[in-house]
Amino acid sequence: MIGNLNHIAIAVPDLAAATAKYRDQLGAAVSEPQELPEHGVTVVFVKLPNTKVELLHPLGENSPIAAFLKKNPSGGMHHMCFEVEDIRAAAQKLSDEGARVLGDGEPKIGAHGLPVLFLHPKDFDGTLIELEEVKK
Amino acid sequence: MIGNLNHIAIAVPDLAAATAKYRDQLGAAVSEPQELPEHGVTVVFVKLPNTKVELLHPLGENSPIAAFLKKNPSGGMHHMCFEVEDIRAAAQKLSDEGARVLGDGEPKIGAHGLPVLFLHPKDFDGTLIELEEVKK
Repeated sequence: MIGNLNHIAIAVPDLAAATAKYRDQLGAAVSEPQELPEHGVTVVFVKLPNTKVELLHPLGENSPIAAFLKKNPSGGMHHMCFEVEDIRAAAQKLSDEGARVLGDGEPKIGAHGLPVLFLHPKDFDGTLIELEEVKK
Repeated sequence: MIGNLNHIAIAVPDLAAATAKYRDQLGAAVSEPQELPEHGVTVVFVKLPNTKVELLHPLGENSPIAAFLKKNPSGGMHHMCFEVEDIRAAAQKLSDEGARVLGDGEPKIGAHGLPVLFLHPKDFDGTLIELEEVKK
């Protein structure tokens, strides 16, 4: 069911500093920061040949990553995102198998403009998993 | 400098249960468990089209992930691994730029039989980064 790893998301306390480290120390191609107010984050994309790392920093009040950074002030790996071809079928299969979809179970439009869902980290070894519908 | 994301490693408290979830709930191809006593882990590879997830469980005493699981009993994302073409050149560049290589700074032979190094998580936003030398 799951296809490509679309991205790994890292919550960072200082977006400019984190971007500089990935660019200058690790020698990766990085994007300009993009503010996504409807998602409560500013994001920088670190482009790898086979996938990407997303550096996330809280934007505005009620950012979904503010609590994570409060608990982990140095930052840390926040979630990983797998692509699926049919997100409603994926959600149904997961529910049937006993995994919990966060929220009301309905896909939302995510940061890339595509439907996404998150799975309960307690059902996947403490790992927050995002599913994103990417049509082939 | 960094190339492909080689893998994301997840420390899991129950390897058989975690493997079943990735196989049955997420529908991914998974390997048989492989014991790597010299690295203190048993690993299951979750094969994605563009990269892999590695499920790690402690093996023997002094496992490098035992402390992580003690602190995070449910498991969690442990590290991510980027490929580099020349690991000694990478280590030199990182040291020159002020990043800390863990241990004595010398590459060790990692779980895939290739030279690896780990970078200090405090230098990368609370994220443990492994570099693995993969010749193209």
